[in-house]
Parts: sequence; C-alpha cells; structure tokens
Amino acid sequence: MQELSFLNLVRDDLVQVETLLRESPPGQHEAIGVAVDHLAGGGGKRLRPALVFLSAHLCGADMGRAAFAAAAVEMLHTATLIHDDLIDGSPMRRGVETLNARWSPAATVLIGDYIFAHAAYLISRADSVRLMQRFAETLMDMCNGEVRQVFDGRRGQVSLQEYERRIYAKTASLIAMSAEAGAILAGAEGETTEALRVYGEQLGLAFQIVDDVLDFVADEETLGKPVGSDLRQGLITLPLLFFLEAESDHPAVRRALQGNPSGEVVQEAVRAVAGSLAIERALKVARWHADQAKETLNGFSNSSYRMALLDIADFTVRRRF
Amino acid sequence: MQELSFLNLVRDDLVQVETLLRESPPGQHEAIGVAVDHLAGGGGKRLRPALVFLSAHLCGADMGRAAFAAAAVEMLHTATLIHDDLIDGSPMRRGVETLNARWSPAATVLIGDYIFAHAAYLISRADSVRLMQRFAETLMDMCNGEVRQVFDGRRGQVSLQEYERRIYAKTASLIAMSAEAGAILAGAEGETTEALRVYGEQLGLAFQIVDDVLDFVADEETLGKPVGSDLRQGLITLPLLFFLEAESDHPAVRRALQGNPSGEVVQEAVRAVAGSLAIERALKVARWHADQAKETLNGFSNSSYRMALLDIADFTVRRRF
Repeated sequence: MQELSFLNLVRDDLVQVETLLRESPPGQHEAIGVAVDHLAGGGGKRLRPALVFLSAHLCGADMGRAAFAAAAVEMLHTATLIHDDLIDGSPMRRGVETLNARWSPAATVLIGDYIFAHAAYLISRADSVRLMQRFAETLMDMCNGEVRQVFDGRRGQVSLQEYERRIYAKTASLIAMSAEAGAILAGAEGETTEALRVYGEQLGLAFQIVDDVLDFVADEETLGKPVGSDLRQGLITLPLLFFLEAESDHPAVRRALQGNPSGEVVQEAVRAVAGSLAIERALKVARWHADQAKETLNGFSNSSYRMALLDIADFTVRRRF
Repeated sequence: MQELSFLNLVRDDLVQVETLLRESPPGQHEAIGVAVDHLAGGGGKRLRPALVFLSAHLCGADMGRAAFAAAAVEMLHTATLIHDDLIDGSPMRRGVETLNARWSPAATVLIGDYIFAHAAYLISRADSVRLMQRFAETLMDMCNGEVRQVFDGRRGQVSLQEYERRIYAKTASLIAMSAEAGAILAGAEGETTEALRVYGEQLGLAFQIVDDVLDFVADEETLGKPVGSDLRQGLITLPLLFFLEAESDHPAVRRALQGNPSGEVVQEAVRAVAGSLAIERALKVARWHADQAKETLNGFSNSSYRMALLDIADFTVRRRF
C-alpha cells in the first residue's frame, strides 16, 4: 500500500512513524524490540497512521504531535493483533510467523501488554487529553467486542446487525479514531471532528468486509496467511452469512461449521462460497460503506488531502490484499 | 486495612473509588462487570487509591480529579493481577478464586485487556497529560519487569540488586506513581512531586518485601492464598535469598527449587525458611525502605495527611496480612 499514489502525501510523515515504532525506552527487554521489529517490519499497510496524518494536514494540526498519535494507533493495532492471534492460535500474520507461534503463551500475553502500554505512552506524547480519552474509549470498544465474541460464542447464525457490531469493534473503531485524531489535535470544530470520525468508521466497515471477502477469494501468497481461516474457526463473516441465506444446507459448509473440520472440508467450503453470488453481495455492502465514507467529506473544501481520503475509500474496496 | 485509623482521612474519598470501579460504560459485556465485582469486591487493601488521595490533600489538588486517578491506579493494579495470575496459574487471590480458575485463558486475557483499557480511560478523566504519561510509563515498567522474568527465568540464584529491580517493576513503580499523582494534579513543584514519588517507591519496596516474607510466615486464612506459593513457582524472594546465603544446601529447599516439588517438600522448605534468621534479615531491609520513605516527607510541614503517610509506612512493615 505504501506504493500507492495517495500515500505520497504522507510518505515523509510515515518515516517518522517507523522511527517512533522502533524507539525502545531505556531498560526495555530485548525480546520486546525483537517482537516489535518482527511485527512492525512485516509490511503492514500503515493505513491507520496515514489516516492520522491526512486528517492532521486537512485540519492544520501540528505534525509533530500527529506523528506521536500515528505511531500510537499503529502500536495499539499491533498489540491487539498479538492477543488476538494468541487466542485464535493463528500461526501466520502478514506473511510472517505470529508471536504465539514462536514464544510461550505467557511471553505472548506480556509482550502484548507491554505494547499496549507503549501505545498509551505514545498517545500521551501527542499532548491532548481529549485524544487520550478517545484512545482509551476505542480500546475499550475493541476489547469489549472480543470479550463478547469469546463469551457469546462465534458459532451459529448471526444477524447482519451483529456482524456489523462485531466488525465495528474489531476494526472500524480504531480506524474511526485514527481519522478523527488529526482533527482533535488541530482543535477543529465538533462537526469537522465528527465528519472525520464517521468517514473512518464507514471506511473501517468497508475495509473489514473486504478482508472477510479476501479470506475466501484471495491468493494465499498475497494474503500472507491461509485462506479460509475464519471458517476454520467457525467465524461467520458477511460472505458466509449471505451464502447461508441462499444455501443453508450446503454439506461442506455445514460440516465446516460443526467444528474441527478437515483441511479438505474447509477447502471445499471455501470454494463453494468463493464461487457463489455471496461474494458480490458482500462487496456491494462494502462499496456502500465506502461511498458513505466519501460522502462525509462533502463538507470539506477540495485539497490534495481530501482527494487522498477519497482515494483510500476507493482503494479499500478495490484491493486484492 | 480500611479499618486502620490513618484511612479515616480518606474514607469518604474511597467511597467515590468504589463507585467509579463499579461503573460500567454502556454496552460493556456483563462478564466484565462480574469480573470487576468479583475482583474489586475481594477486600483489596485500597492502598494505592488512599495514597493518591493523601498526596492530593497534602498538595491541594482538586479531589474530583484525584478520584479518577485513584480509581485508575486500582483498576490498573487489578488488570495486572489478572494476567499475572493467569501466567502463574494461581487458583486464589485475596481469598477468592482467580479469573483463570473460573474462565478460559482467552476470556482471562481479554478481560484483563479490557480492564487495562478502562484504567487508561479513568486516568484520562483526571485531565492531566503529565499524569497520563506517568501512568503509561509505569505500566511499561511493570510489563517490562514481567517480560524479563518470563524470558530470563525465575530459577537460579539472583542478586539483591536483581531482586530489588524485580520488585520495583512489580510493585513499587505503581505505588510510586500513586503517591506522586496527587502532587501532579495539584501542579506542585518538581521537588515536591519527586519527594512523593520517592516516598511511594520506598514504601512499595518495603511493601513487597513484607509480602514476600508473609508468603513464608503468614497464616493461610489471613493471607487468602496458600503460603509458599513463590517457592512452588521457583521464585527466589528476599527471605529465600538470605536463607540460601546461609544454607545453600538445605535438602528440602534445594529440592523445592529444582521444580515441580511435592506439597510436603514445599511445606518442609517453607518451615525451614520461616524458622530461620532470614526472615528477620528481610524484615530489616523492609524497615530500612520504610524509614527511607518517611525521611522523604521531612520537607513537608506537619499535617494530618503527612502523619497518615508516615503511619502507612509504619503499618506496611508491621502488618501480618
């Protein structure tokens, strides 16, 4: 994604984020540095930091403070992935081994905690109590969503509303906060801040739906993890939800959802969903959210930064990785 | 501890903390409320919130803001215990079942994460960027200490210096931040803030050494968890460190430290250490730290709040629970 043209505008800003992500406070155990390098070096898209910077440019925030906020959201994103991968037992992420595949559960929990703390430290350096509050609220939303998933179970039919609530907590909440951050740091008016928050929220929903589609249709090498991993965990995402509406008794899909499916069953079920109309239906919902995101930018005067935010919305639903 | 006279001064303030600890933001999953009630209702000593309030009174901070900081440090303390107990596999804490004894590792990790987030939210409501920074730095110190322990191992001889570094990270760092918090919120001078930080640090070191002594000599019912739990995990604390200096080849203690000791071996080793001069030597170090804590208060004019802080230092090394 860093090769994409709309990111040219924040290329120099993003260099600062790389530096901040790799800064290790005095006394930090070397394993933490290894973990951060391993994860942060893994070719993440840096979507969240880019949004912080574009929002900051758009609203005229101090870019030094924005850099701390941008590094903080990326660090927080990394921390949540560490605990999620541990809980899901995922072996790969972005084409590299997960921490839980290399280290003990204890080490993985604690390094995740440390990286949470580092994210909180970075956001505090952006020097805005309001932004700190939004950061903490976002983290609560994210954790609450995960707790709900663990306690209320992943299996069984879910409604579209439940699905959207889940992907809001998982993905859209942090993307919303990223897009809002620059406006908060600029001390922008409530209406402006809210418009950017809604932009991020809608973008985030689109982004996660596309991720969920890619889990069925992507090329494994491009994706950096096995396809069908949601299905293997019994997680019902939008393409599957639409597929089940049309074909609730497809044998392989049913078997896959009954738990502990074989590799063949998962492959067959993935092929069935990937070849169905459910994919296009899900992408249509993603495009609708991307359009909503773009609409919230109508009130902003035209600028290269506004254009870049529009491009990101288009890219989100076009991407194949 | 809430029956202790020096806490009379902050009894009303502490009621506010209980309320804030039990407030659940809209949409919070019910399991989180159950967990917080279970843990926060477990008769914790509320030492950290009391220190925030005494420091706030001493320096003239806004007590409403101090209440958020007090609730935040208690919430953070709770969060760290959840992950620690999971990693140690501890079945009991303060006389009640731990979360990991009741729920899955996934649920325990995520509820701990949520409670971290809630602590960050509470501290943001104290409305001080400086305090937020100290909060995040403290959490980093704590997690870093835990990571070090997991990677560098608990077993084997440790030096007095390594032991103090470990208990600083585990306990003294958060107690230091609690004692410093009121001064930060009052906008006190650097010297005042630093004096209270050092008071808390020295108090925290004394507090943890006494905890480590109690793990050998306490009555199980008063302690609320089995004695000898450090030894059972191969954790060398100050009493054991002193014991090994005098009797490095005591058979039961050696066997206990070789890993997976039987209940009888642990009991015999605990009795050996409890009956040795190592206990008094360790308590002497604790008393030295408590005296250091008291000395840092020399520069403050006399008041009931200063007296209470002095009393807490005395109580810390006198307590049997």
